Amino acid sequence: MSRGAATTLADMPSLTLAMAQINPCVGDIDGNVRLIVDACERAAGEGADLVILPEMVITGYPIEDLALRESFQRAAEAAVHRVAAELGERGLGGLTALVGTLGTDADGRPTNDAAVIRQGVVETTYSKHHLPNYGVFDERRIFASGHDTCVVEVKGTRVGVVICEDIWAEGGPVTQMAGRDIQVLAVLNGSPFEEGKGHVRVELAQRRAAEVRAPLVYVNMWGGQDDLVFDGHSFIVGADGRMLARAPGFEDSLLTWTVPADHDTPEPGHVEPMASDDAQVYRACVTGLADYVAKNGFRSVVLGVSGGIDSALTAAIAADAVGGENVVGISMPSSFSSQHSKDDAADLCKRIDADYRVEPIAPMVDAFQQQLALEGVAEENLQARVRGVILMAISNREGHLVIAPGNKSELATGYATIYDAGSIGGFAPLKDLDKSRVWDLARWRNAHAAANGETEPIPVSSIEKAPSAELRPGQTDQDSLPPYELLDEVLDAYVEHAEGREELLARGFDETVVDKVLQLVDRAEWKRRQYPLGPKVTALAFGRDRRLPVTSRWRENAR
Amino acid sequence: MSRGAATTLADMPSLTLAMAQINPCVGDIDGNVRLIVDACERAAGEGADLVILPEMVITGYPIEDLALRESFQRAAEAAVHRVAAELGERGLGGLTALVGTLGTDADGRPTNDAAVIRQGVVETTYSKHHLPNYGVFDERRIFASGHDTCVVEVKGTRVGVVICEDIWAEGGPVTQMAGRDIQVLAVLNGSPFEEGKGHVRVELAQRRAAEVRAPLVYVNMWGGQDDLVFDGHSFIVGADGRMLARAPGFEDSLLTWTVPADHDTPEPGHVEPMASDDAQVYRACVTGLADYVAKNGFRSVVLGVSGGIDSALTAAIAADAVGGENVVGISMPSSFSSQHSKDDAADLCKRIDADYRVEPIAPMVDAFQQQLALEGVAEENLQARVRGVILMAISNREGHLVIAPGNKSELATGYATIYDAGSIGGFAPLKDLDKSRVWDLARWRNAHAAANGETEPIPVSSIEKAPSAELRPGQTDQDSLPPYELLDEVLDAYVEHAEGREELLARGFDETVVDKVLQLVDRAEWKRRQYPLGPKVTALAFGRDRRLPVTSRWRENAR
Repeated sequence: MSRGAATTLADMPSLTLAMAQINPCVGDIDGNVRLIVDACERAAGEGADLVILPEMVITGYPIEDLALRESFQRAAEAAVHRVAAELGERGLGGLTALVGTLGTDADGRPTNDAAVIRQGVVETTYSKHHLPNYGVFDERRIFASGHDTCVVEVKGTRVGVVICEDIWAEGGPVTQMAGRDIQVLAVLNGSPFEEGKGHVRVELAQRRAAEVRAPLVYVNMWGGQDDLVFDGHSFIVGADGRMLARAPGFEDSLLTWTVPADHDTPEPGHVEPMASDDAQVYRACVTGLADYVAKNGFRSVVLGVSGGIDSALTAAIAADAVGGENVVGISMPSSFSSQHSKDDAADLCKRIDADYRVEPIAPMVDAFQQQLALEGVAEENLQARVRGVILMAISNREGHLVIAPGNKSELATGYATIYDAGSIGGFAPLKDLDKSRVWDLARWRNAHAAANGETEPIPVSSIEKAPSAELRPGQTDQDSLPPYELLDEVLDAYVEHAEGREELLARGFDETVVDKVLQLVDRAEWKRRQYPLGPKVTALAFGRDRRLPVTSRWRENAR
Repeated sequence: MSRGAATTLADMPSLTLAMAQINPCVGDIDGNVRLIVDACERAAGEGADLVILPEMVITGYPIEDLALRESFQRAAEAAVHRVAAELGERGLGGLTALVGTLGTDADGRPTNDAAVIRQGVVETTYSKHHLPNYGVFDERRIFASGHDTCVVEVKGTRVGVVICEDIWAEGGPVTQMAGRDIQVLAVLNGSPFEEGKGHVRVELAQRRAAEVRAPLVYVNMWGGQDDLVFDGHSFIVGADGRMLARAPGFEDSLLTWTVPADHDTPEPGHVEPMASDDAQVYRACVTGLADYVAKNGFRSVVLGVSGGIDSALTAAIAADAVGGENVVGISMPSSFSSQHSKDDAADLCKRIDADYRVEPIAPMVDAFQQQLALEGVAEENLQARVRGVILMAISNREGHLVIAPGNKSELATGYATIYDAGSIGGFAPLKDLDKSRVWDLARWRNAHAAANGETEPIPVSSIEKAPSAELRPGQTDQDSLPPYELLDEVLDAYVEHAEGREELLARGFDETVVDKVLQLVDRAEWKRRQYPLGPKVTALAFGRDRRLPVTSRWRENAR
């Protein structure tokens, strides 16, 4: 391409665009500005004329009620102008940047905006029309809708601009753009990961690209933010549905691609293959934990290691997230702990290179028991909570973040002691993984290590033995719960797909099992409210994705 | 009034209406149907032609994502027809009942409805237009808006029907009704209590009554539902703004009133005087706790009693909520506990007739310390958490609900040990009361007792002494925090009024204090997420009323 040559429509200069897939931090406006300006500079260095950044990248996403604060609105407004000024100062005024940010409308109400930046100024802004207010999203709480469409001309190419939900809703700005002869549709996204969502996004984008008869450029952020993980996986599809470019998941990426001159057939760029579902879910859990640790100023984590599968997988995820040398594994055996459990815990920590320590709980449990003489469940829970106190004490003394190894099946059924070592702390990496998935991912992680000639992090016996809380002699989880394979199927239908009792029975599940599971789930809501945050990886996670009253006499199984 | 006599327009029979202020339970559809039918029967017995019940009274309110379940929708639909049929069977077909319920629109989406019931059938339904989606409300998440207005003729009188937020929003169904010559506007409400809201409701109702030129009948539910308390205080205002009737707060009420024949001047009915703000807030805390206990199937509560003001007020509230004989107060002295604290705790329990027990923590703390040798804050927190374990153990053994005495100032600043006896359990009655308000209410409660010739529940020395966690020798709260009077003023501006640092400094607060308080508040978000539910009594409570990310580098005080 000869820059600066006179051009006609037939021999228009082609436009090179860059997808800047970065990891902003909520509230770190100065840091986000640096990430954005650096990405723009690199994009220009790679010959880009247009760089597209994710939704709300100036402020991080989602910012929840921070959107309503005037001080925060002012800071975002100043920051987007600072990006424009800095690009101008660095001689990048010729570059066009589409940057997601927080704006305000004529009435001063907050809006979810894309700023069009070039020549050192914010040339115009577009406000998102469709505001998701379901699942994990509360955007009608905090944002006003935009009403205008946005088409910018970059190097003679007409680029339509929309934001995330705008392409998920029928009608609206995409439909309005269909008649406006755009050559590229740029979509800025903050789209959280869930298993299987990659396909849904691509199919949707193919439909919209066909609708506007132009390639669709889908730029997503990546990184962890509380209970959400953004997976990146930015991509471009042609009007004919062809995959033209794809960035990797869960990492920084700057991928350039050249828009074909009018009506030419587009040339594919780099198309990163998609990892398996197991690999993606595992990476999501690692990313969620790594960013919770880093963005909240921690450097290390501590957890109880029991020799069981939950703490083993959690420790492996932690080692991948922060490095094994920053993981502290505390074995807290009781008189009911088996030798194989203690051996497995030690083996785990050795495999992942964690700091392994043993703190037997008998002296503390005895002290409580001399005074309280507890029996049955109260006695079992006491042991579990003494472990919680030990972990919190070590955290207070040494500054590690306590992480909770509880899984989704436990959380669903309330089969865990509240305030025990499985449910306290700042973050619960397995919170949205049911027990069956915990086993799957443990096997996947070991296989992945083996395939790379590395040490398998998880002791095989932790995967293979029958799960037990070891709070009384000979106890196994199946004394109290249906077999996990069956339990997880019922939970999937009841929790993730919100089916009622009638639908569950119609699917052929045993009535006794259904009634038991539904009762357990309905009664455990209060425990879930006090659970640490953990990464959403399924279509429906506990937390803000599923909002139910604690006080409720509604019982599916009473109908 | 001679019933059955021939009437002309000039001598129209006047209409008697009843405001049925009841306390439904979320999900207890059968129980709510019974309450509704009983209220209708009593209303008919008192000569009512029209009975008006609160918003969503069939299902309880708010039902959150239960609204999205088809099984729940079907149950609500069946229940409203059951109410109609039962009224018919009891010979009450001539009565018109306006009953709040869950409906669905033509596309099957859930709606927030008023059903008009008479002659044994559901004659018509009205769907709420304006769906609140701010503060504690998420109605755009779960409901579709209605678009039609509803005017029903009862005994020749034209009655307009709207629901709650419909009168808070400008325009909409009330404005549409202004030209339709209605003689009464019936408003079904589920309006949560907050201090000072009573005046706001009445002023708003006066404005709307003038707009439609007819009396406005405001019927509100009462009772506790998780973090909300509905206060009742149903009322009627005339088109001229006069208060024509008012029900008491926080209790069942069936208040009848006769609508004047066309253009006659209305006669006032019973107008209950409003209690003081302190009395209302105290009653709200009692109601929130009482209903959390009862509706979740508990009969008794347990809490740690330290001799301090927070646990003393919490215990007094508990005694008023469930009866002193159902309150278990556990004194858990350490080596740092003063004699006066132990004496005050014992005195408190005696005054409220609670089950008082002493569980010294030294043996357990020593057992932990021999193994962990903690110092400083870690050692302080250990003592606090050992108390938490003791309370949970007693709860597990005896079935009492653990209640947490933490207050809003503590929760705001994170000045509390997570998982200690102040922050564990199912419900925290003082959660939305700052420390200054805790003292106010303690004084109010004692004065109220004295005025009624009853024993003052709270020991005077618990009110008067300097607050201390007593976790090290000579400790007071003011070693770590600004004086509460000042702290609470800053918190009120920053948390409740969401002012930024600039605004706080402009108000004249000291910069060092402001920066310290803002930093404490911003960093404590993770602890707040794991806190028990507690009743909202201010304009902005922690919890779903104030949604902020845990992971956030936004620092007001860094600007």
